[in-house]
Amino acid sequence: MRLDAQVGGESALIERIARKAQDFTPLEQIAIVQGIGDDTAVLLADGQTLLWTADMLLEGVHFRLDWIDPRSLGWKSLAVNLSDIAAMGGAPIGALLSMALPPKRTGEWLDAFVEGFVECARACSTALLGGDTNRFEQVVVDVSVLGVVSGRPVLRNGARQGDWILVTGGLGGSKAGLEALQAGETDNIDLTPHFRPVPRLQAGALARELGATAMMDLSDGLAADLPKLLRASGSGAVVYPAQVPVHPVARQWAQAHGLDPALFAIAGGEDYELLITAPPPKAERMLERIPKQTGTALSKIGEVVAEPELWLEYPDGRRESFEIAGWDHFTA
Amino acid sequence: MRLDAQVGGESALIERIARKAQDFTPLEQIAIVQGIGDDTAVLLADGQTLLWTADMLLEGVHFRLDWIDPRSLGWKSLAVNLSDIAAMGGAPIGALLSMALPPKRTGEWLDAFVEGFVECARACSTALLGGDTNRFEQVVVDVSVLGVVSGRPVLRNGARQGDWILVTGGLGGSKAGLEALQAGETDNIDLTPHFRPVPRLQAGALARELGATAMMDLSDGLAADLPKLLRASGSGAVVYPAQVPVHPVARQWAQAHGLDPALFAIAGGEDYELLITAPPPKAERMLERIPKQTGTALSKIGEVVAEPELWLEYPDGRRESFEIAGWDHFTA
Repeated sequence: MRLDAQVGGESALIERIARKAQDFTPLEQIAIVQGIGDDTAVLLADGQTLLWTADMLLEGVHFRLDWIDPRSLGWKSLAVNLSDIAAMGGAPIGALLSMALPPKRTGEWLDAFVEGFVECARACSTALLGGDTNRFEQVVVDVSVLGVVSGRPVLRNGARQGDWILVTGGLGGSKAGLEALQAGETDNIDLTPHFRPVPRLQAGALARELGATAMMDLSDGLAADLPKLLRASGSGAVVYPAQVPVHPVARQWAQAHGLDPALFAIAGGEDYELLITAPPPKAERMLERIPKQTGTALSKIGEVVAEPELWLEYPDGRRESFEIAGWDHFTA
Repeated sequence: MRLDAQVGGESALIERIARKAQDFTPLEQIAIVQGIGDDTAVLLADGQTLLWTADMLLEGVHFRLDWIDPRSLGWKSLAVNLSDIAAMGGAPIGALLSMALPPKRTGEWLDAFVEGFVECARACSTALLGGDTNRFEQVVVDVSVLGVVSGRPVLRNGARQGDWILVTGGLGGSKAGLEALQAGETDNIDLTPHFRPVPRLQAGALARELGATAMMDLSDGLAADLPKLLRASGSGAVVYPAQVPVHPVARQWAQAHGLDPALFAIAGGEDYELLITAPPPKAERMLERIPKQTGTALSKIGEVVAEPELWLEYPDGRRESFEIAGWDHFTA
């Protein structure tokens, strides 16, 4: 797959906004390291680097209330934002929660939502600090998270030829849960990976410390997100499907439906695992230390190449372009 | 009006959330000065005081797209958040913009919205730094603003007996615009106060510097917001209707409809002027310096009293309770 292809949808909207927003006049004492375009804004304020991100979740678009329980929705609303902080190697300071909700959701439903939100906050050593509540016909959740990083945050654009490509945890578990919900076949499927993604804060911080050149979280799936990282870095990659860590739930679902588990995992989506690049010696140190120190698995899945192309390489040496593999529609 | 009365609606929801969110575990290096409950969270990070606020605006609830043009909506979405920073005496660092919008709004409409947003950002020396965009059937805007204050921010709870009560600008102009839109009588009414509130950042910063004891912005109208400040401060007040600054547009609208201009202005709503309390010598200095240095008018409208009651006092010495004046429904 060529990586300079036009990307539609949200990227085009963001570009449209960025064009209008350029040449602003910020405070003198604040340096904007990274503004519109990345998932997270980076601010240098008095020698301290602040990370700042927001994500909106909409009923009927990002979640269905007949599928997800309020406690899980609360957890997930915060977790997806913390994941953006993790992807820069930062630690969260706190979160603001803006909500719109119908009157019938303001009682026990809201209590359970906030319980899940706070459960995730505690698990990640952070706090709910405030927000805004409104009545509306549908549930809308917008979470803004502020984080801090000591030293330089890791951006998307630093991957270099020869870097190894690593991912945390296992991929495809959330997609399996989503497909099970869509098919109404949830009896034997663990929905936890879909409902309760775990922000990889410790792994992200350690990867930064050990010299990651680029990092991002996998929200749209490896097949969609790796091209974004490579485009930002002006590079290409070879990925080894046999080395992609397949989440057990993804393996179970793929096998039950006659799908290739590795390709299913690569398509993924909403895994919120970290995609990391680093030169080999540093990557080797990560492979050794991150699982040991953080309890989070880490796998080498490929290497960065200079040409802006994406290839799959199989154990028998056979290479396929992403396009040939038929994944192109995942990147739209 | 008794100030210890139960307040329904959003306050009850916020209390419900706060109960669930208490006893969190934040980062050690961050002190949370003010969490859930105020409009704005206050964080002490490495000796720097950060202010952080978010406000969600929903189509059909906070705005109607057949009434407000996208450029004005962009301005207003940012302005109402900057107003929260102004109310603490802070300066904005930047803003994140999360949006949901239908496909037909992603072209020229979005351009105009962002132009208005950035116009407000420039006017207030701040910047749009990032955000999130999503497709949805209705327009939802959630803006998060980060600000900074040198020294102690001004909260709502510092008003003390004998303090003077001051307000910036003129009140009721936005309410006049809203009523004109509702009545379909917009021909001779200036809608600017309703569409383009001006965040009083310079006035707020100077009021803080000169020793304001409490401050908040008037989003729900003086009749609703003054009780909030007094409740937080454990005090009451006497307000002089004859001294309340009536916005020219409010005066025009009230007179054309046989309403008392001062009572109309006191009911107000969406004025985004600042409500300030300060002991007399400091208040006098503000009355002299804020108009001169910032170009924003400032008026003394009353005094803080110890008893938790709210009174109107007329030039002839006659006193009326807020309840007697029939304003109680504005505070619901």
